[in-house]
Amino acid sequence: MRCCHICKLPGRVMGIRVLRFSLVVILVLLLVAGALTALLPSVKEDKMLMLRREIKSQGKSTMDSFTLIMQTYNRTDLLLKLLNHYQAVPNLHKVIVVWNNIGEKAPDELWNSLGPHPIPVIFKQQTANRMRNRLQVFPELETSAVLMVDDDTLISTPDLAFAFSVWQQFPDQIVGFVPRKHVSTSSGIYSYGGFEMQAPGSGNGDQYSMVLIGASFFNSKYLEFFQRQPAAVHALIDDTQNCDDIAMNFIIAKHIGKTSGIFVKPVNMDNLEKETNSGYSGMWHRAEHALQRSYCINKLVNIYGSMPLKYSNIMISQFGFPYANYKRKI
Amino acid sequence: MRCCHICKLPGRVMGIRVLRFSLVVILVLLLVAGALTALLPSVKEDKMLMLRREIKSQGKSTMDSFTLIMQTYNRTDLLLKLLNHYQAVPNLHKVIVVWNNIGEKAPDELWNSLGPHPIPVIFKQQTANRMRNRLQVFPELETSAVLMVDDDTLISTPDLAFAFSVWQQFPDQIVGFVPRKHVSTSSGIYSYGGFEMQAPGSGNGDQYSMVLIGASFFNSKYLEFFQRQPAAVHALIDDTQNCDDIAMNFIIAKHIGKTSGIFVKPVNMDNLEKETNSGYSGMWHRAEHALQRSYCINKLVNIYGSMPLKYSNIMISQFGFPYANYKRKI
Repeated sequence: MRCCHICKLPGRVMGIRVLRFSLVVILVLLLVAGALTALLPSVKEDKMLMLRREIKSQGKSTMDSFTLIMQTYNRTDLLLKLLNHYQAVPNLHKVIVVWNNIGEKAPDELWNSLGPHPIPVIFKQQTANRMRNRLQVFPELETSAVLMVDDDTLISTPDLAFAFSVWQQFPDQIVGFVPRKHVSTSSGIYSYGGFEMQAPGSGNGDQYSMVLIGASFFNSKYLEFFQRQPAAVHALIDDTQNCDDIAMNFIIAKHIGKTSGIFVKPVNMDNLEKETNSGYSGMWHRAEHALQRSYCINKLVNIYGSMPLKYSNIMISQFGFPYANYKRKI
Repeated sequence: MRCCHICKLPGRVMGIRVLRFSLVVILVLLLVAGALTALLPSVKEDKMLMLRREIKSQGKSTMDSFTLIMQTYNRTDLLLKLLNHYQAVPNLHKVIVVWNNIGEKAPDELWNSLGPHPIPVIFKQQTANRMRNRLQVFPELETSAVLMVDDDTLISTPDLAFAFSVWQQFPDQIVGFVPRKHVSTSSGIYSYGGFEMQAPGSGNGDQYSMVLIGASFFNSKYLEFFQRQPAAVHALIDDTQNCDDIAMNFIIAKHIGKTSGIFVKPVNMDNLEKETNSGYSGMWHRAEHALQRSYCINKLVNIYGSMPLKYSNIMISQFGFPYANYKRKI
C-alpha cells in the first residue's frame, strides 16, 4: 500500500475513518436541512396568515367590515334561526348579542357546541331589560360600521351587501330599510307616522325624516354620541322602553345638519315574529306604541330646543337587482 | 263793516282775494298729493319686483334654477312640441336652443308670435352642424345647473323636478336618466354598452359607469372644462359626430375621482323620434354608432393615459312616487 501524505499524519488510519464519518454526517445534515427548508415556507405562511388575522382583528375602525348588534328578549328561537343566517353574511366581522333575558343564561354552550362558526359571536348578559342596552359602547366592537337588526327581522344577504356598500359612501348617515316620518300640525305639535301620513309640502310623492335603526347600518361612533346625551333622553327611553331609534335620528340629524338617514328599498326582508314559539310578539304591538312615539318626538324637541329632523325623498335601489329593475314597466 | 287789522294793510281788498285763492290752491295741491301718495306704493312695489327680478337674473350661478340646453337638427316639429312642454317646468330659468340647421333661419318669429312665454328662449344659430356645439360656454347661461336634453326626448315634469333636487345634493356629478357602461376585456380593449353587457365583478345586479348627458342635469362649469380639453378630444368628437357625452363622463370622473354620474330611474320619459315628420331618425340609428362609441372609449383612454370611469350600482327613485313605490310586491 503506497502511503499518501495523509498517511504521514499522526493517527492517520483513524483520521481517514473520522473524515469519512464526518463527511457522511455532513451529507445527512444537508439532506435534513434541505427537507426542513422545503417544509418551512408553509409553516411560515401559516404564521403570516395568523399574524395578518391578528393585525386585522386588532385594527380598530376598519371601514371594510361591520359588526352586527342584535338585542334579544324572549325570542331565543328566532334569535338562533337568525344567527344561522347572519353569521354567513360577507364582510361581517363579529356579532354582539345583547341578551336582555335577565336571570336566564345566554346560550353560549349551545352556540359553542354547534361550532365552528364563521365569525365570533359574543353574548352580552345584561343586568336589566332595557331597550337602550343595545346602544352601549361595546368594547368588543372594532368596526366603523354597526349593523343593527331587531331579533325578529330577516334581511337577505344581497340587501345587506348592497346597503353596506351604500353606507360606505355615506358613512355619516343611517343607511337602512325602514323609513318613517314626523309631521307637524298648525298647533306646532308633532306626530309620528309612516306612509299613511303626509309630510307638509310633499307635492308629488312622499317624504321620510327618520330611518329606524332596527334594520340599518350606522357609524359606531354614534353609540358614543348616544351615551353623551342629556340624562333626560336616556330617562325618556327608559320610561317608555321605546324611542331609542327616534332619539338616534335626532342626534344624528343635529350633528350632521342634514337628513339623518338614507332609505334603501329592501328586495327581500321579512319579519319572523309570527314564527316564534315564545308567544311574545314584540314591543310595537303594545296599544300605546304609536302614541308613545309621537310623545317621544315632542319630548325630544323639548329637550333639544328644536326640531332637527329633515325630510328626504331619496330612495335607493340596487341597479339591475332584481334583474332589469331599471326598465320601465309597460 | 268793521275793519280788522288786515284791512289796514296796503292793497287789503286785493290781499284777501289773493289769500283765499292761495288757500284754495294749497288745498287742491294737498288733495292731489294725497291721491298720489295713495297710488305711489303700488308703483314702488312694481319697481321693487322688477329690481328683484333684475337682481335675480343678473345673479350668476344660482343653485335654485337651471338652464335647458337643447341642440336640434332637422326635427323642428319635435323641437317646438318639446319646447311647449319644457317651458313650463318649475325652476327653469331659461332655454338655449342650439340651432344646428345651418342656413335655415331659427324660428324666432314664430316663437315670438306665439307668446307670451313663461321664460326666455334663445335660439343660437350655429355656423356648422357639430355635435359638440351644445357644449359651448354660452354667455346667456346664468345658472349653476344645466339641463341637457336631446331634441327627441320628453321627460315628465315630476321626473325633472325630482332629478333637479337630487342634482342639488350632488352638484359635482351628472344626475340623469340614461345609464351606460364600459367593459374591459382580457386584451385590455374596452367596449361600450348598456344593460346587455356585464361589468366585471358585478356579482349581484348590474353596474353603470356613465350617465348620458342628453337627459341629465350637470354643473355648468363642466362646459368650461370641456372647452379646455386637449384638441384631440374635440377632434375625436368632430370626426365621429358622436361621443361628446362619453368625453364629458371621462372629464368629470377624472376631475372628481369618483363615478361621474348618478342614475335616477325615470317614471315617465319618452322618445318621440318616431313622431317626427322630418324623416330624420337620429344619430344613434347610424350603423356604426355603437362601434364608434367603443372606439371613442379606447381613443379617450389613449388621450388621457388612463381609464378614469368608475362603476356604480346606485339607482335613485323618488320615495312614494308613483304612489307606494316603496312597498314590496307580493
